[in-house]
Amino acid sequence: MAQFINAKENLVTEAIDGLLAAAGGALSRLDGYPHIKVVCRADWDKSRVALISGGGSGHEPAHAGFVGPGMLTAAVCGEVFASPSVDAVLAGILAVTGEAGCLLIVKNYTGDRLNFGLAAERARALGRKVEMVVVDDDIALPDLPQPRGVAGTLFVHKVAGAQAEQGKDLATVTAAAKQVIGKIVSIGMSLDTCTIPGSPKEERIAAGKAELGLGIHGEPGVQQVAFVDARSAVTMVTERLAPHLTGGTAVALVNNLGSTTPLEMSVLTHALTETGAIGHIIGPAAMMTSLDMHGFSISVLEADAAEQDALAAPVPMAAWPGLHQVVPVPVMPMPDGLTPIAPIASHNDRARGTIEKVADLLIAAEPKLNELDAKSGDGDTGATLATAARALKGGLDRMPLADLTQLFPALGNELSQTMGGSSGVILAIFFNATGDACANGASIHAALQEGLARVSEVGGAQVGDRTMIDALSPALTALPDGITAAAKAARQGADHTAHIHRAKAGRAAYVPEENLKGHNDPGAEAVALLFEGLAREMAEG
Amino acid sequence: MAQFINAKENLVTEAIDGLLAAAGGALSRLDGYPHIKVVCRADWDKSRVALISGGGSGHEPAHAGFVGPGMLTAAVCGEVFASPSVDAVLAGILAVTGEAGCLLIVKNYTGDRLNFGLAAERARALGRKVEMVVVDDDIALPDLPQPRGVAGTLFVHKVAGAQAEQGKDLATVTAAAKQVIGKIVSIGMSLDTCTIPGSPKEERIAAGKAELGLGIHGEPGVQQVAFVDARSAVTMVTERLAPHLTGGTAVALVNNLGSTTPLEMSVLTHALTETGAIGHIIGPAAMMTSLDMHGFSISVLEADAAEQDALAAPVPMAAWPGLHQVVPVPVMPMPDGLTPIAPIASHNDRARGTIEKVADLLIAAEPKLNELDAKSGDGDTGATLATAARALKGGLDRMPLADLTQLFPALGNELSQTMGGSSGVILAIFFNATGDACANGASIHAALQEGLARVSEVGGAQVGDRTMIDALSPALTALPDGITAAAKAARQGADHTAHIHRAKAGRAAYVPEENLKGHNDPGAEAVALLFEGLAREMAEG
Repeated sequence: MAQFINAKENLVTEAIDGLLAAAGGALSRLDGYPHIKVVCRADWDKSRVALISGGGSGHEPAHAGFVGPGMLTAAVCGEVFASPSVDAVLAGILAVTGEAGCLLIVKNYTGDRLNFGLAAERARALGRKVEMVVVDDDIALPDLPQPRGVAGTLFVHKVAGAQAEQGKDLATVTAAAKQVIGKIVSIGMSLDTCTIPGSPKEERIAAGKAELGLGIHGEPGVQQVAFVDARSAVTMVTERLAPHLTGGTAVALVNNLGSTTPLEMSVLTHALTETGAIGHIIGPAAMMTSLDMHGFSISVLEADAAEQDALAAPVPMAAWPGLHQVVPVPVMPMPDGLTPIAPIASHNDRARGTIEKVADLLIAAEPKLNELDAKSGDGDTGATLATAARALKGGLDRMPLADLTQLFPALGNELSQTMGGSSGVILAIFFNATGDACANGASIHAALQEGLARVSEVGGAQVGDRTMIDALSPALTALPDGITAAAKAARQGADHTAHIHRAKAGRAAYVPEENLKGHNDPGAEAVALLFEGLAREMAEG
Repeated sequence: MAQFINAKENLVTEAIDGLLAAAGGALSRLDGYPHIKVVCRADWDKSRVALISGGGSGHEPAHAGFVGPGMLTAAVCGEVFASPSVDAVLAGILAVTGEAGCLLIVKNYTGDRLNFGLAAERARALGRKVEMVVVDDDIALPDLPQPRGVAGTLFVHKVAGAQAEQGKDLATVTAAAKQVIGKIVSIGMSLDTCTIPGSPKEERIAAGKAELGLGIHGEPGVQQVAFVDARSAVTMVTERLAPHLTGGTAVALVNNLGSTTPLEMSVLTHALTETGAIGHIIGPAAMMTSLDMHGFSISVLEADAAEQDALAAPVPMAAWPGLHQVVPVPVMPMPDGLTPIAPIASHNDRARGTIEKVADLLIAAEPKLNELDAKSGDGDTGATLATAARALKGGLDRMPLADLTQLFPALGNELSQTMGGSSGVILAIFFNATGDACANGASIHAALQEGLARVSEVGGAQVGDRTMIDALSPALTALPDGITAAAKAARQGADHTAHIHRAKAGRAAYVPEENLKGHNDPGAEAVALLFEGLAREMAEG
């Protein structure tokens, strides 16, 4: 599977340099590439206890993303899924450890324990005060001899980090870390394996299955289970966690293992909070990933008051999502005004006559407009307009015919309901904006221009884009000179659309040029036929 | 492809409720489920201009994740990749708009334009002051009539949001939004299509190919290109962006389209910053996703000073990664002390004699230890120890034999180099810690106990775990009573390991119980043989 990397051997160093370049100078690294990859706080003055963590890469943002005030002082990065060397860890220790000493926070994997452990010995031999704690939060196997260190490690970084930031001494920080480690429990579930750069993907998890109790290095989960849905996934996970909890204030760290979408993570979070077992939450977010694994993990710490404070302390690193209390979903009542108040019907023979005439013209034009539309679309422009016209005629008794400021919006709402689709919404916008302008004191002509401007703004079409605007715009411009002038302008505009072979808006934008040549846009034609009909009517009347 | 969802029809509402439950009370929603899905600031008092955005779901954290002080007042959410209805947008407008009015920020997709546009008209008819801007930042096609709105929309949210937060009036906020929209350019690239919930995945992109110039709704990219590596991907993208830039201060928004790993995003960021074309960066982060698309997009805004300030203003939402200046990667010199200072060789016949005797004992034990190891491992314990022993004998002339505080660490370093693997590191830790204790004034016996304690701490093994500790620990405990007592205790401990069928640490933890029955752990046996040999030697000598 292709990935956005260059040479595999430079993957981790390039990624670290990308992180540093985008960190605005907050992060630095040791000059030890390629073997020694240590990311440090650039502002570090060694005045307090240093916190150092790390391990194999592939778990980003852990660990380098959590280097900063209030969390880690340095992260020692190995290659993907491989522990950093003793020399790399020692370099990290020597670079950031002052008189106050340092605490190494190590995930329980043999390589990490040994390399960090020996580096600690060497640093001690050089006179540094070094403590080391090992995080073993994974509860996948009830009596696993060496539980793995997984995402719960973040709890340790944050609690110890807050203590160190406050200037607590090494013994106090170490004791706080150990207290947290003694209480964290974590378990993960995944629907797919991860893709190790440069290796073919292992297709281990069959369709309909999920793996429960997995680590963060692509190793198989403790069991394969049938996957039903998000809720049952959360139930399986929380049932494994529950026996380890004692009823204290449960803080859940909801971790995206890699490629789970934010939508899925939020659905899982919803299922988790619905259980009622969680008091506070960190995430959902990608914190301790396993490359692109499509899975999640939940870690729980029953935090005392001091630990809650430490977890809640703000830090500037974007990778830390913060601690939030789980609250019942706050729901606001719907606002008034959504249901349009039915306008009070009123009589006006001239308005009724005009609308009836317009409707009849559109009904009569149905075959012609359908035929035109069939050349570049699905051939239903005539039918859509005729159906709307019939509905309009049938609804005239409900219309506020005597009040134009009410009549225009009412027409718009009627059209948007009967026509549906984009055309209905566009006409609704046209008539609503026209009515709005009337209500603000504009003349009918000016109000219609206002309506057109709004349609153009919302729909994104201008004159020349092969839409109904090509006829409507010149018609409205000419309207002060009379309906006959408007009709003539509309006809010219409509006929010109036959020469526009490149539609820039509306559905015709997706039609090949060849299909647009030599015939009018059906929307523009409808407008022209309307104005021509009205002009004839007035000449005759 | 399985996903962590429940019923598809509840996907978006459950995800929103998950987001809200984890937001600590900062977010609220309207009581309009399932059709009306509007997320609002819970603390909103309508005293300033409201900013409303939204559109189809599937782009999380956009848009609901950016609701909060300094960005959006409300997000109107449709179903996955489907515009919200006019009623939903109108409900959002009416819920949050006060005297100061509101600005709708709409991505340029027909459905969104029309539904937001008509809702704006309706709200105006109800007396609300409403402005609307349409973001069209996609430059995939040079002369696309209707460029799509994609991740650059975040620039508009942030700049307009900062202005609104400061209490600027609607005209000012709208003008600021329009100025930003006029300058943003965006383009994306992907290695794979996205998975629409409930639909089979479209396998459109062949191996070795990438799509360039894609939208965020799964539509095909403008062209398929050969994919080489991350650097060439960034080059293709920046070459498309360059003609649109005028040389101002370029702020790049580096967006993860879904399932690209943080490692890959950092590699891409590294390649981007290496071009030298970027002054500031937002991300890399998932901001405007397209479900689980394995791709990225880069949006660029040439920001003036006021826009830079607005982009840099802190906001509390975790989804916003902040703005950082692009800096040369800060590199710190490597610390001193990494290269162990070679100890000064010195003479001591007793120490030399003891080491030679121990080495000879281990060399003699090679076949027996190999044979034991073969029963539960790969049969090389004897060979590994014998090789190390030979190297040790060969290096005695370089050893600080007269100074125990130097000799112990020197032995440890020699063993870790010649043995390799876990055993070498463990012995190095043992001897380094022993030497450290000696240097601190401990007796040899106490120092050896200290070494054992450290090995136990780092390696995670206790007595009873079927390791060399089962022999070493009782031997050291008995040592004050003499070497013969120690040898007896070591033998008892080693022989007891034959009855430990469940290893809790070391490699044997992964061996089936059956294979452990009835024979000693080779590490413990080696210790017992050592002490027995030394005891014999002393009795004879």
